[in-house]
Amino acid sequence: MRDHQAHQVMWHQIFPEPQRQGTTLQSQLRVRLVDAVLDGRLAAGIRLPSSRELADMLAISRNTVVLVYEKLAEDGYLENRPRNGYYVSERYLHQQPPTPAMAQPNPGAASHAVNWQARMQSEPPGIKWLDKPEDWQRHRYPFLYGQFDPSLFPIADWRECSRQALDVSSIRGWAPDAIDHDNASLVEQLIKRVLPRRGIAARRDEVLLTVGAQQALYLVSELLVPPGSTVAVEDPGYMDARNIFLRRGAQLVGLEVDCDGVQPDATVLARAQTLYCTPSHQCPTGITLSTERRLALLEWARHHDGVIIEDDYDAEMQYAGKPSPALKAIDHERRVIYIGSLSKTLSPGLRIGYIVAPAEVVLRLRVLRRLMIRHPATNNQLAAALFISHGHYDRFLHQMREELARRAALLIAAVRTHLPMMDFTAPDGGSALWGRFAPEIDTRLLRQAAFEQGILIESGEAFCLHDPGHFNCLRLGFSSIQAERIEPGIAALAALLPRCRRRSSAA
Amino acid sequence: MRDHQAHQVMWHQIFPEPQRQGTTLQSQLRVRLVDAVLDGRLAAGIRLPSSRELADMLAISRNTVVLVYEKLAEDGYLENRPRNGYYVSERYLHQQPPTPAMAQPNPGAASHAVNWQARMQSEPPGIKWLDKPEDWQRHRYPFLYGQFDPSLFPIADWRECSRQALDVSSIRGWAPDAIDHDNASLVEQLIKRVLPRRGIAARRDEVLLTVGAQQALYLVSELLVPPGSTVAVEDPGYMDARNIFLRRGAQLVGLEVDCDGVQPDATVLARAQTLYCTPSHQCPTGITLSTERRLALLEWARHHDGVIIEDDYDAEMQYAGKPSPALKAIDHERRVIYIGSLSKTLSPGLRIGYIVAPAEVVLRLRVLRRLMIRHPATNNQLAAALFISHGHYDRFLHQMREELARRAALLIAAVRTHLPMMDFTAPDGGSALWGRFAPEIDTRLLRQAAFEQGILIESGEAFCLHDPGHFNCLRLGFSSIQAERIEPGIAALAALLPRCRRRSSAA
Repeated sequence: MRDHQAHQVMWHQIFPEPQRQGTTLQSQLRVRLVDAVLDGRLAAGIRLPSSRELADMLAISRNTVVLVYEKLAEDGYLENRPRNGYYVSERYLHQQPPTPAMAQPNPGAASHAVNWQARMQSEPPGIKWLDKPEDWQRHRYPFLYGQFDPSLFPIADWRECSRQALDVSSIRGWAPDAIDHDNASLVEQLIKRVLPRRGIAARRDEVLLTVGAQQALYLVSELLVPPGSTVAVEDPGYMDARNIFLRRGAQLVGLEVDCDGVQPDATVLARAQTLYCTPSHQCPTGITLSTERRLALLEWARHHDGVIIEDDYDAEMQYAGKPSPALKAIDHERRVIYIGSLSKTLSPGLRIGYIVAPAEVVLRLRVLRRLMIRHPATNNQLAAALFISHGHYDRFLHQMREELARRAALLIAAVRTHLPMMDFTAPDGGSALWGRFAPEIDTRLLRQAAFEQGILIESGEAFCLHDPGHFNCLRLGFSSIQAERIEPGIAALAALLPRCRRRSSAA
Repeated sequence: MRDHQAHQVMWHQIFPEPQRQGTTLQSQLRVRLVDAVLDGRLAAGIRLPSSRELADMLAISRNTVVLVYEKLAEDGYLENRPRNGYYVSERYLHQQPPTPAMAQPNPGAASHAVNWQARMQSEPPGIKWLDKPEDWQRHRYPFLYGQFDPSLFPIADWRECSRQALDVSSIRGWAPDAIDHDNASLVEQLIKRVLPRRGIAARRDEVLLTVGAQQALYLVSELLVPPGSTVAVEDPGYMDARNIFLRRGAQLVGLEVDCDGVQPDATVLARAQTLYCTPSHQCPTGITLSTERRLALLEWARHHDGVIIEDDYDAEMQYAGKPSPALKAIDHERRVIYIGSLSKTLSPGLRIGYIVAPAEVVLRLRVLRRLMIRHPATNNQLAAALFISHGHYDRFLHQMREELARRAALLIAAVRTHLPMMDFTAPDGGSALWGRFAPEIDTRLLRQAAFEQGILIESGEAFCLHDPGHFNCLRLGFSSIQAERIEPGIAALAALLPRCRRRSSAA
């Protein structure tokens, strides 16, 4: 019997004040006990306080303590000695770390023996990032793009589908290594429910699931964009696509964007083998590409043996006018590689994207995906399939569109009132408004001044292909800001504008 | 009123016989109704059968129908007209696909206008895959490696953690785009609970989460293995690592493996800048590398400015002898890039791996990961963190080790009885046994013959660096075969051996 040791245990160190928010008290208590057992603070044989004593000590219900003790005894962390109490068990003791002498590498000694900088592949010039503050949810006016509003997330429906994906028979389906396979039901739902809305008829072997649209772009670039080849991109355009092409060693040429979308400039296109574009809602301007220009792009591809990468990242978010089908839908020569995503609708955190391409291309993309990551997490694939097949996705899109239309209207009204000098084209969909000021306004200064007031905006310069460019533009995202914050946010932003004139032409 | 149309609906096509297994009847009924509404078979205004009628028609409980109708009315798919019944609502009608003329690309016309084969990056020679039949769970004797036994998966505990990860406050944490961040609690659990068992002390900025060990290897190779450089690999060794290095354009040189693990052959190592190895349980032989050889490898790295990639993919599965710490634990010059994974323990489907490396390397790997996928699915990161912090992981490891030790003993006994001519080294851990027959036995023939009898084995040839090699070897995995199947499986395999002699030396 070693229970005399119990008196030496600093119980108040093991159980600090429980937190009244966040995880449950049961969960907090369990985590602390497990911690103390596994790191040796509670050695085997130590007797725990009685449930009454511990409940008093922590000012929590005795039942909470009883439930945690019982479960830990069942799991082998504690041992229940009838009429005597709970004791720390010996069961997991052999899991202690190996000899401490080995455990501590000497960080001082020769920690810079390797010249890592010289060994690492160098970053290509021209890479640009759009950084969002990690704590953006805490800012008052987050006019950010690509994030989502937690108050819109369909928590109950998603939870129901996740729960179904945790059925015993479902787990058997997703837990094994799927090697290079995709969840058949998710592929089916995309083909039956999602792609037809974009006018796309696809076969199973023409679809590949990816870890978000980001991986889709990366895979397509690795397979189809040879180093040294030329890619035409929109300017202003999506910097992460440019980054991927630059890293691949491609040359970039820019196509200008006006109020009909990207301009199919024949001189620029003639130099390119590949075109990357966002026809549904151009990134970052939100403008929908006109039919005439769509036909011109396809025409270029036919005459120059070109390939088009269509990034349809948020096409489902159409709320005004008639939805125009994807470029892929009128691609009779099958020169379009289509990229879609559930990130802008369901949530970016789940990382679900997809590629639609000719079967022979999908076959090779699948091999590359296997090499790169094997496959995306299978439990999320199944939960997403259930979410779509049960009609939650369509319902959610409906709600999102209504909400985004409402916010777009509020934003446009607020801009017309407070920022009448800002030039913009009202979007038919998407969740951002691109604005342009007179050339003497510098939105990099505005972004900084706004940040200090809790207003998060994106300055246009990050989207330009060649510096300096679009420094008088900005993007106002409205997927993460609540409707009632829009008008006061724009009013506060407008007040900062007079301070944000360019200091010099070189700035 | 258009409810006369209801009589023309082919209800038995919309509701075929419900399945008595798999998803619940409620879920099946909902999926079918949503399907019919969204694809237009049930047009707006159609009146549904009464709950009693439908329940009778499908021979299911009326309550099931009532619950589905009520929920669909709440979700806007149906409309409840009091004292009149449920009608299909108009709400989601605008979500119909765009004009069908656009929807059907002409697949015949010019579908091969693009010469995709010529455009796609060619596959490097030497790539080899180990293919597992997709339906392996249905084979009687799956001596496969790297899969898992669904009967061991900690379903209840994992479900509890997933449920906690679906709390409102948790969803707010994981649903946004994390850009390049990792879940802080999972990183903390790895540092506090998992890595110390390997003798590794790591700081937060030295850890990066990945989509399984596969992505970890791919990232490290992209950043640290320049095209044209030479990587020393184990022979026999892990083919997916070789594939990644080959695709990167590296040269491979092979180090032989004996009963003490990989041989630190100075002549071979002198040609390499990077070494890839699996010291804990060598892949595929399962042998633990001796301390003397570990020191020799570190010595090589110091003298030749070499970098070692340590793949510790299943180190937690140690069940005999004292666990030896990772090579990384005695890496005083910090030349070891360490790769770990939860795939071989928790489940491959969740895709959780990690890298431990100097902070400056992790920083650059993080940039590359952002470009490639942004980040791994965040909901799984949180669920895994909860699983570890609540003590489920340690308990599960304990169970897994006991079960694997039991299976290893059964397998070794069965091999000694039925395959006495097979040479092998009993492993201290891992979940596979590597065996060698006399040179006249061809395990490629054995693999094929076994497959026809429902026995899945892996022939050694897939692991060799230069063909033909190790054609008289095989790997018997025991993580996915149930204990009671081991002995009969080996007996059945032994019966096939006489048929599997090499036909000619060129075979």
